[in-house]
Amino acid sequence: MKFSFKNDYSEGCHPNILQALLQTNSEQQTGYGEDIYSLQAKELIKEKIQKADSDIYFVSGGTQANLIVISSVLKPYQCVISASTGHILNNETGAIEATGHKVLSIETPDGKLRPSNIIPILENHQNVPHQVMPKLVYISNSTELGTIYQAKELEELSDFCRQNRLYLFMDGARLGHGLTSEISDLSLEKIALFTDIFYLGGTKNGALIGEAIVINNTDIQEDFAFNIKQKGALLAKGRLLGIQFLELMKDQLYFDLARHANQQAMKIKKALQGRGVQFLSDTYTNQIFPIISNALIDVLSEYFEFYVWKKIDAEYSAIRLITSWNTDDEAVNRFIEITERELS
Amino acid sequence: MKFSFKNDYSEGCHPNILQALLQTNSEQQTGYGEDIYSLQAKELIKEKIQKADSDIYFVSGGTQANLIVISSVLKPYQCVISASTGHILNNETGAIEATGHKVLSIETPDGKLRPSNIIPILENHQNVPHQVMPKLVYISNSTELGTIYQAKELEELSDFCRQNRLYLFMDGARLGHGLTSEISDLSLEKIALFTDIFYLGGTKNGALIGEAIVINNTDIQEDFAFNIKQKGALLAKGRLLGIQFLELMKDQLYFDLARHANQQAMKIKKALQGRGVQFLSDTYTNQIFPIISNALIDVLSEYFEFYVWKKIDAEYSAIRLITSWNTDDEAVNRFIEITERELS
Amino acid sequence: MKFSFKNDYSEGCHPNILQALLQTNSEQQTGYGEDIYSLQAKELIKEKIQKADSDIYFVSGGTQANLIVISSVLKPYQCVISASTGHILNNETGAIEATGHKVLSIETPDGKLRPSNIIPILENHQNVPHQVMPKLVYISNSTELGTIYQAKELEELSDFCRQNRLYLFMDGARLGHGLTSEISDLSLEKIALFTDIFYLGGTKNGALIGEAIVINNTDIQEDFAFNIKQKGALLAKGRLLGIQFLELMKDQLYFDLARHANQQAMKIKKALQGRGVQFLSDTYTNQIFPIISNALIDVLSEYFEFYVWKKIDAEYSAIRLITSWNTDDEAVNRFIEITERELS
Amino acid sequence: MKFSFKNDYSEGCHPNILQALLQTNSEQQTGYGEDIYSLQAKELIKEKIQKADSDIYFVSGGTQANLIVISSVLKPYQCVISASTGHILNNETGAIEATGHKVLSIETPDGKLRPSNIIPILENHQNVPHQVMPKLVYISNSTELGTIYQAKELEELSDFCRQNRLYLFMDGARLGHGLTSEISDLSLEKIALFTDIFYLGGTKNGALIGEAIVINNTDIQEDFAFNIKQKGALLAKGRLLGIQFLELMKDQLYFDLARHANQQAMKIKKALQGRGVQFLSDTYTNQIFPIISNALIDVLSEYFEFYVWKKIDAEYSAIRLITSWNTDDEAVNRFIEITERELS
Repeated sequence: MKFSFKNDYSEGCHPNILQALLQTNSEQQTGYGEDIYSLQAKELIKEKIQKADSDIYFVSGGTQANLIVISSVLKPYQCVISASTGHILNNETGAIEATGHKVLSIETPDGKLRPSNIIPILENHQNVPHQVMPKLVYISNSTELGTIYQAKELEELSDFCRQNRLYLFMDGARLGHGLTSEISDLSLEKIALFTDIFYLGGTKNGALIGEAIVINNTDIQEDFAFNIKQKGALLAKGRLLGIQFLELMKDQLYFDLARHANQQAMKIKKALQGRGVQFLSDTYTNQIFPIISNALIDVLSEYFEFYVWKKIDAEYSAIRLITSWNTDDEAVNRFIEITERELS
Repeated sequence: MKFSFKNDYSEGCHPNILQALLQTNSEQQTGYGEDIYSLQAKELIKEKIQKADSDIYFVSGGTQANLIVISSVLKPYQCVISASTGHILNNETGAIEATGHKVLSIETPDGKLRPSNIIPILENHQNVPHQVMPKLVYISNSTELGTIYQAKELEELSDFCRQNRLYLFMDGARLGHGLTSEISDLSLEKIALFTDIFYLGGTKNGALIGEAIVINNTDIQEDFAFNIKQKGALLAKGRLLGIQFLELMKDQLYFDLARHANQQAMKIKKALQGRGVQFLSDTYTNQIFPIISNALIDVLSEYFEFYVWKKIDAEYSAIRLITSWNTDDEAVNRFIEITERELS
Repeated sequence: MKFSFKNDYSEGCHPNILQALLQTNSEQQTGYGEDIYSLQAKELIKEKIQKADSDIYFVSGGTQANLIVISSVLKPYQCVISASTGHILNNETGAIEATGHKVLSIETPDGKLRPSNIIPILENHQNVPHQVMPKLVYISNSTELGTIYQAKELEELSDFCRQNRLYLFMDGARLGHGLTSEISDLSLEKIALFTDIFYLGGTKNGALIGEAIVINNTDIQEDFAFNIKQKGALLAKGRLLGIQFLELMKDQLYFDLARHANQQAMKIKKALQGRGVQFLSDTYTNQIFPIISNALIDVLSEYFEFYVWKKIDAEYSAIRLITSWNTDDEAVNRFIEITERELS
Repeated sequence: MKFSFKNDYSEGCHPNILQALLQTNSEQQTGYGEDIYSLQAKELIKEKIQKADSDIYFVSGGTQANLIVISSVLKPYQCVISASTGHILNNETGAIEATGHKVLSIETPDGKLRPSNIIPILENHQNVPHQVMPKLVYISNSTELGTIYQAKELEELSDFCRQNRLYLFMDGARLGHGLTSEISDLSLEKIALFTDIFYLGGTKNGALIGEAIVINNTDIQEDFAFNIKQKGALLAKGRLLGIQFLELMKDQLYFDLARHANQQAMKIKKALQGRGVQFLSDTYTNQIFPIISNALIDVLSEYFEFYVWKKIDAEYSAIRLITSWNTDDEAVNRFIEITERELS
């Protein structure tokens, strides 16, 4: 079996989670997220974000979280602004539009949105009532390109959104990776402060399934559970989500797992940089995009699975490597070893 | 802790499932349902239904299965016919209507639909194009009232639907219980033969989450996966669903679990009948509705949790008891013992 | 040609309207409802309802008005309550559900809703978040059965809705007929006072097309025009609607036309009552439902078109007769004459 | 009053139409498009397109036509491809997305789509089932920029679409203008041959309201009327649409009106070209985009209304002039006169 660097959801879950599932398995618990584990996990998250009036809900996956949040918050004629690399634009089969809402796309070099990207959109949507009304800014952290927001950037974007009556929603499918990046100066508290709504991704950070939606803006909290149920996302055995987040939130496991994934990617990055390899973008999370020769790609493909991301020229392409909470030193070292051997 | 007879999803899952999750946990598997466990589970189901050209997909829960199936199969102006007790009518927060489709409700005494129920609906929807077009018949087996279809009934309904160009869709959230009822003469093969589409419920029969949608009518198979993704139901770690159904389908575990649940309910039913207790409806699955005095309800409530379902008169009410794959003899015997003591 | 009593939209429009279209035809006017005729017509309506802060919009037809109003006002998980005879339930091809909202149906003898009809619905929708949330009460005046609300009835229903945080929406496709019924004690002012939103129907009362939506509740006025545009209901030549409503609102033409229609129906009603004919329901608007013998139906069918509405027994059926702003005495007298001759 | 060159829907309708409405006004006709005028108009259109098996429906406006066609033809996961200038992308308040479908935008210099524009979209949407499936190509003729398709271009696009199982849908809000352009070699017959579905715009070519949807592909004809009704677009007095199209189709009036509009624009174009004025794009229909100085814009604004379309530099801007079926020589000559005076 080749080791796969294709994504961060190839393995099962962190053993603590399976252990907790085993220990609690025979208990009878109330259904639909009213079990004690879900309640405890929510309390723990509230502590970590330092915001007692936030509302928290657990759902199974990222597309589900995105479509529920956006369709709950917007009126029929309101739309979303997203970087063109946004997951909702490219990888969710039109899930947002299927709930009736347009997603406006903005080209950006690094997958991040800044006020300067959004201003032209607002200026070009003044022909009332003939155009959709931009109302929600969708960002990801870390982004789909592996980049992250700095605290100052997020604060500026947050201020801009509030001045312009736009909701700010952060897709946190890889929020752990974003926050534990060696260059991040953000924290969960700041994210709760700067966004109206965000989610903590579990699926890509050691859970079997699960994203924790956190609604910080109290204006949009009312009746949120109805939307979860209506979209088919309310699990009868909600304990499955609660138990997982309780384990992840205990003792910083969530951050430890993400940091591990980042560190493994950074090991490869540094090794490759040491051999003069260039990268498609300068990332500090668990996604890296080294530009290597097609010959090297062929060699590496004998041992590893990964995506060839973008053709650079006749001879070179960028590949995408993703590391996970479970990527071990053996795989990382082997990858480095082979690459260094080939590049020497 | 009081023992709960409130539903069949209070506990975790059958131990075999947790065991399989543990054993496979560290493996890297392809995402989105392309893992080997999902593929194996699908093969096993196809064997059991004896229909090689059926398509099978796993999703998390029943509301999700219902809304994906119905919105995939219908054109915008087509609608659903359901018994008034249908889960989609009462307990899914308008999930079907949220995808754009009306659900027509038919009052029936036992939660089952027969051609005679549907004929008047068809007759009253001839004012083209001013009315919705009935196109899909939604049934449940066992029903929301615990009743089941006999093979002859299902065949007649199936014939009627085909003659009238209606799709027949069976909600199988409790299909295991329906099939293993002591009075059932149906089988998975026959259900695959008589329905256009149905699902095998896992959540209420020993899985953590999971329903297996089986599309028998090849006309409606095309591109089904897009709908699953668009509704946010495609799990990145699809293995979670595949592993569970593989365990459930092996060695008839799925049926053993359901049969156990039914038998525990039947034990209570027979004991109560022995004391002259009447029932709201005559059921042979894991849901029973004994009519008992309010005084007895008060006594039982000290030891057990259950729903008081319907007031009969000033003195009597029907309660609903649901047993599960995990309801043990101790709870059942204790319930019988207390009831017999009080009724003697 | 047989004279048709089938409906009130068989003819073109009142001649004043065509005259006004001719006179203004060559003028250049601003599009999309910003023409001076639309603005003037809105002012005139505001005067008549004595409510300066209401917002008014013109759309083409009743189904369009219903679907725009309901989808604009409700959140995704909220639903409508309607009498089972409601136009939105039976004659709009699921237009409301197509915008994502369930319509709950209540059986009533006369097509009218009272608080006592609604209370059980509210009581049966307490299982949060597993059920849709009833939020808007849809009524028609005159109703689809030709009956009308008395002021006291509407006030009670209005009070009930406000106490229960329900919006009250009146379909006024035949509002003129309702208000000019000989037994009506309602007025436009009272309707504006008692409803959150209603519309004045033009199509069935002498216009070519057109319904005037009046939003009285200021909480639901924001951004309404976006919804009209998004649903394809904003006419480029909005003058067509404005000119019509200006003519209808001038000099009470709207009410004169409806009163005429009612009076023609009442003439027939009284003549038939004089011959001992019974009616399916006791109406005082432009719809009447006499119960006559099949033999008489056959005779009348030689001269007139009308719907056979409901079979009463082997020998008798109720027919529906609708008169319009343009039904002349000749047709009415001839109908009476033939009937009296046959019944004598 | 200043004369307006802002659009082609500022005036009422062609006098023949009002005359026909007057003459037929008192007749009783069947509702909902079953009147004799609608039936005759459909026959006349079928003759002109030389395609007897096409289905024809009349609706009120362009946004309505677009949303009904697209939502009827596509399955939930399928999407539209449009030039970035497409009306559905910019001026319809997200009407298409509100029916659940994404619209993919392609930048083109002239508002026209060619196979070479579409190929990359198809290549980038291969990640099944994680992306929407492109299924319908939306084009306009004339386009929103006033440009037109040549027969060869449309044929190539048509062939490409058929090879790739894409529907080709032409928005014909200004189809008359496209077909009567001095450089057009297309005809109604060819358009019926090359497209799966298109519409003949009435609103912008002398009707009060009205677009005639023509469905050429018999695979997508079934049950279309249901969609019209469900979206609130089926007029009770369908005669209003039938009578208008009957007048427009008689004796080539439709083409005469459009040709007149084009000719008036071309007169201005040629006069301005004679004075060395440049244009933003080279159009031969009723929309022209001359680039003139801000000083000249100020002078012209004293006499005329028009849109300043795009700033070119500090001193110059492009304006948009639209002429209509009713733009008379006086206005055109005056505009030319003032411009020539100022530019001399």
